[in-house]
This record gives sequence, C-alpha cells and structure tokens, in this order.
Amino acid sequence: MNNLADLTTPYLLLDPEKMRANCERLQAHMNKLGVPLRPHVKTAKSVDIVRRMIPAGRGPITVSTLKEAEYFAEHGFTDMTYAVGISPDKLPRVARLNRAEVTLRVLLDSKAQAEAVVAFAKMERLSIPALIEIDCDGERAGLQPGDDKIVEIGRILHENNQLAGILMHAGGSYHCPDKAAKQAAAEHERMTAVAVKQQLLDAGLPCEIVSVGSTPTAHFAKDLTGITEMRAGVYVFHDLVMAGIHVCSTDDIAISVVATVIGHRPDKGWIMTDAGWMALSRDRGTAKQEVDQGYGLVCAMDGTPYPDLIVANTSQEHGVLALRKGSKAKLPELRVGSKVRILPNHACATASQFQGYVVPDGDELVFWPRINGW
Amino acid sequence: MNNLADLTTPYLLLDPEKMRANCERLQAHMNKLGVPLRPHVKTAKSVDIVRRMIPAGRGPITVSTLKEAEYFAEHGFTDMTYAVGISPDKLPRVARLNRAEVTLRVLLDSKAQAEAVVAFAKMERLSIPALIEIDCDGERAGLQPGDDKIVEIGRILHENNQLAGILMHAGGSYHCPDKAAKQAAAEHERMTAVAVKQQLLDAGLPCEIVSVGSTPTAHFAKDLTGITEMRAGVYVFHDLVMAGIHVCSTDDIAISVVATVIGHRPDKGWIMTDAGWMALSRDRGTAKQEVDQGYGLVCAMDGTPYPDLIVANTSQEHGVLALRKGSKAKLPELRVGSKVRILPNHACATASQFQGYVVPDGDELVFWPRINGW
Repeated sequence: MNNLADLTTPYLLLDPEKMRANCERLQAHMNKLGVPLRPHVKTAKSVDIVRRMIPAGRGPITVSTLKEAEYFAEHGFTDMTYAVGISPDKLPRVARLNRAEVTLRVLLDSKAQAEAVVAFAKMERLSIPALIEIDCDGERAGLQPGDDKIVEIGRILHENNQLAGILMHAGGSYHCPDKAAKQAAAEHERMTAVAVKQQLLDAGLPCEIVSVGSTPTAHFAKDLTGITEMRAGVYVFHDLVMAGIHVCSTDDIAISVVATVIGHRPDKGWIMTDAGWMALSRDRGTAKQEVDQGYGLVCAMDGTPYPDLIVANTSQEHGVLALRKGSKAKLPELRVGSKVRILPNHACATASQFQGYVVPDGDELVFWPRINGW
Repeated sequence: MNNLADLTTPYLLLDPEKMRANCERLQAHMNKLGVPLRPHVKTAKSVDIVRRMIPAGRGPITVSTLKEAEYFAEHGFTDMTYAVGISPDKLPRVARLNRAEVTLRVLLDSKAQAEAVVAFAKMERLSIPALIEIDCDGERAGLQPGDDKIVEIGRILHENNQLAGILMHAGGSYHCPDKAAKQAAAEHERMTAVAVKQQLLDAGLPCEIVSVGSTPTAHFAKDLTGITEMRAGVYVFHDLVMAGIHVCSTDDIAISVVATVIGHRPDKGWIMTDAGWMALSRDRGTAKQEVDQGYGLVCAMDGTPYPDLIVANTSQEHGVLALRKGSKAKLPELRVGSKVRILPNHACATASQFQGYVVPDGDELVFWPRINGW
C-alpha cells in the first residue's frame, strides 16, 4: 500500500486463513467427487487471490467480463471460460486473446450467435471454442433440455470444430435454505447436463465439456457422474447470503468492511459509521431470507459479532448501526473513532466497491489490488 | 479514451446538454432566491463535470469523502465542505489540505468531536473550520434544534475561532411525491436552520454559514431568507428516483448505461443484456415509489423509452429486460448485438460503478474519468 499508517476507513479487510479454509473445503469435496474445479474469478478479481486458489497459476478459471479475461491472461492464465452470452461486437477482444497462448471459450444459446462466432473465427483464421448455454432451472439464460436448437447450434459450431460442450448454472439453488433442496438442485443440474450431453451425442456431435456450477450446488452435490467441471465463485469469501442458506457459517466469511464510528443518535438507538452503501453496496440479498441482516452484520475488530447489531440503514457515506427489531440485546458502547468490522450480504457486490483488499501478513498489512469495470 | 473504436458495453453515456440544462435550471432558481449553490460533487466525482457546474473552478463544493477533497484540491478547488461527520483519525488528511490554500470545513455533532478537532488544530497550529450538524427531519445524523449541546459545541469551537456555522440535510424530502410536501420540507429545513442560528446568536456565538440542502428541497424552496448556501448533488444528472417524486422528468436524466442484447427467452418474455447489477448497481430506489422501475427504464439509443420495458432482474453481468407486470405493450424486437440505453434508479450509485463517462462531443466521443474509493 502507499501508506499503511494512513489507512482510512472504510476499507476491505481480507482474512487469508478463512479464505484458504473455504478453498480447501470445496477442493476436498471436489476431489472426493472426482471433478475438477474451475473457480469463477468474478468474486475476487485479484491475481493475488486467484493464484492462491490455483497455485499453478494457469487456470482453469471462469470469467464474467473480458476485462477479467485480459487481466488474468496478462498474469499468465491460459485456460478460461467467459460465462456470459457473447455478442458479436465483443469477438475482436475474444480473438485477440485466442491468438495468444490463451484458450478463451465463449457461451451462446442462439443460432445467430453461433453463426456470428463461426463466421468471425473463419474470417480471422483462428479457433474460438464455444459452449452451448443450457437452462436448468428457469432462472436466467439458456436453452431448455430437449430443444432442437441445441443440436442445430451444435452442428453450426461443430462444422468449424468449435463445439466445446455445454454449460449451465443452477442459480435457483440460492433460494434453497434446506439441505435436501440444495442436494436436489445439484442432482437436477447434473441430470439436466447429462441429458443434454446425450442429446448431442445422439445427433452424432461431440460434447467434451459438461460444465455445471453454483456455490450451493458445488457444496451439496453428492454425485457428479458425467460432469467434467464444477464452477463456483463466492465460496472463496462466502457471505451472509450463503450463511443464510447454510452453505457456510458467518464465522467462515473471509471479507469484512472496516468502518469508523462517526456519531450517535441515542434518541433513535443508532450508531453512525463512515461505511454507507458506497462501501457495503446496495445489495440487500438477505432481505427475503429467514434472518434479514440489513446492509451487514456488525462485528468487533476481532471478528466477534455484536449480538443483534446490524447496519439497519445506509446513505452514500453513512451507515446506521442499530439492533434488530425486537432484540433485547444492549447497544454496545462504541465511541467516536472506534472501529468495527461489517460482514457483507453479498461478497461479489461489496468487494466490487473497493480497489483492493487489505490483508494481514504476519505483523504487517499488505494490499492486494483488484480490477473492476469492463 | 484509449480506443473509442473498441468501446465495449456496458458503458456510462452522459448527455452534456441535459446536464447543462439541469444545472442551469437549479442555478436560475437559486439566483431568483438569492442564495449561492454549493454543489455536492459526490454524484459526478469528475473534474470535467464539476468545472462545467462551476466555471471558475475554485468552488464552493461539497464533498462526501476525503479522496474527493484531495482530488478536487489537486485540480485547483479551494472552497470545500466535507459533509460527513468527522472522526479524529481523519484529521491528519484534513490538516494536510487546510495547510495548503484550501479551506476544508468539517462536520460534527458531539462535544467529543469538537474537542478533538480543536485539540488537533491547536497542536498543528492551523485552522480547521467546523460546522455543527443539525437534524431537521429525523433521517440521519445531527443534533435536535434547541438541544443545549449545540451551544456547548459552539463554545468549544468558537474558543479557538473554529465555529463556521451550521449544516443540515432534508433527506426526508426524498419520500415526498407531492409538490406541497416538498415545499413544506424546504420551508421546514429553512425554519429549523434559522431557529438554530438564533440559538447560537442568543448565546453570543457567531453563525456565519447556514447551509441547507437536498435536491428536492433545493428545487421546491420558495423562500430561503436566512440561508447562506444551498447544497444539492444528484440534480446534475437526475435519475428515476427524482423523476418518481416529480423533481424532474425522465427526459431530463443525463446519464444512461449502454448495454448490448446478448440473448432472448421468448418463453419468459425476456431479453437478456450485458448490463447486470455490476453496471446498474444494486440500487432499487424506485421499489417503493408509485412506479417501480425495476433496475432501470429501457430506452432506444436515441433516448426514447420503450413502452413499459424495464430491467426486471439482474445478475452480476446479466440484465433481464421485460415488460412491466400487466403491460399490454409489445416486447420490442431487439436482436443479439442491438444496443439499448438504461436510465438509472439512482445516478450516484450507478455512476459509481464506472470509471468515467463517455460523452458525445460533436461527432466524436470523449472520456471524462471519475474517481471512486476513499
């Protein structure tokens, strides 16, 4: 960092031991199921972090933007999948990466996209491998299993040797607090993938990659027969949304926003801090969960949560700490200048509000930059 | 910009004519009421923009972070108010600015803060002017009018010649769709300010600055007798939240996020784009307004809104366009690769997701960078 002595709040603190434990836990589960992990780097967006997730530092990784792809390629990563539907105007940037030693797969779910990708690859005389996006739970993009378009698109891609396989994301698993429901979502994702692969094979087409994933299904899958890779992102840090559906505990959450107390409203039961929505993000992902954590759960600097203390409201640069409604806990005495740590609802959203991570390293603090933007 | 030909979506498009009209409208109203404007630069965070708001380029401005203060000081601004309660650990950065030709006022609402600011200023042998924060509508920080602490704090500051005045923010006006309610909020803000000033004068203390403001009250104030400056921020761009409470029309909104269509779900009535919450922000400020705009209102590239088409849902890098519930409009035909413009719920939040503004300048596009962070 430029000047650690001047560390101003709000800043984003990363606990590298918790992060390591989160990574080891999922890696061990994947090892047991015999399926390689392709981490989604959209959460961390930091080479310092992703190199710790993947020590060899080449991949496989999943990216959510071409800026991530370019950044990780610059840092030596070579095996990437861009897991957002491709539009033709982005193909020149994709091609620049595929011209180097990098493999960057694209994703699509229409004949128009497949024709554009094939035409562009032919014109540029290079390979742009493509995955067909499948919808397994009605949450987002993708074709329905059994849709004839899957084979039509497969044929368009295969004609130019560009059919890499299929990809799906069980986003519905984020709404599954029950263990059985998460296990069912994982098995449904697997079965969908296996069926679509068979659809391609039956049409005489290859399907080398069968890619599934979401942090909840990755952790709760009991069998991944037929799957060639698992994608997951937020598990590297975890967050209150994941804790709210029992994928982790709040104690596993590896990032927190450090804030300073800047005032009090004893008449309202409020403690004011300098971490507003600009630091915490506007994400209210726990609002519809069993326990609404407001804009975040407030902890002492040693990481211990204060009983029932949440960020009840925010302005751009103000956070309002208050006890949950109905709580019988006592508001802690936190004088102006005191520091607190706030666990985020959604790690991807909160981390994106910062330019990097402050990380304890022995007795020192180091700064791991991250990228944002497109 | 590095390479305008490679302009990738999502990007943030700024219409400089709309911005100019928004600035002129409020400036004309302030001229009529005889009160100078101290724009809040937390919305734009760009010297290219703020120099157009304040052509002399010295101030007065309001800032929400010390990073803004340092950035605008580097660019020649000298008259600033940091309108978030000060914590003692931030005083060294405040002092560095006040040591130069800059005046940076701080804000506080407790004796502990006042004592810390006075002690620090004495130790450093410089002046750190301070404003006392007053609460005019129970929304955030500040002391209640009539509270004895106002005079106590005033005395502590005045003893070292640091009492600059008082400041309040009518944040409650954001919940006032009615014209009469906004006018009443403005008059209540004014009356509160005048009463607190009198409280200080009655105690033999000075009160040079009487600072009020919010975008709704700034536009709807009919009389500002006794007020020395008006602060407002979001009016520079306006947004759907301001349109929803009739401070502007949707046609006044000067920024939009340009997105590319990346797919379709005809079975669901969805059009998928590459502008998810990472581009639009998680702000759902219109959710409780009369018209819920989802994550934004979708327009053609010429700025015309598509009837009833909103961003109904988002993932990190996916936006789902859909018609409002109950709409009889027809989903527009937008092929993969088509561009749309999305008007934001909350300009401050959406702009903060970007590193700058793409601005038409004659037949060209230029890039105006902005700062983020602390």
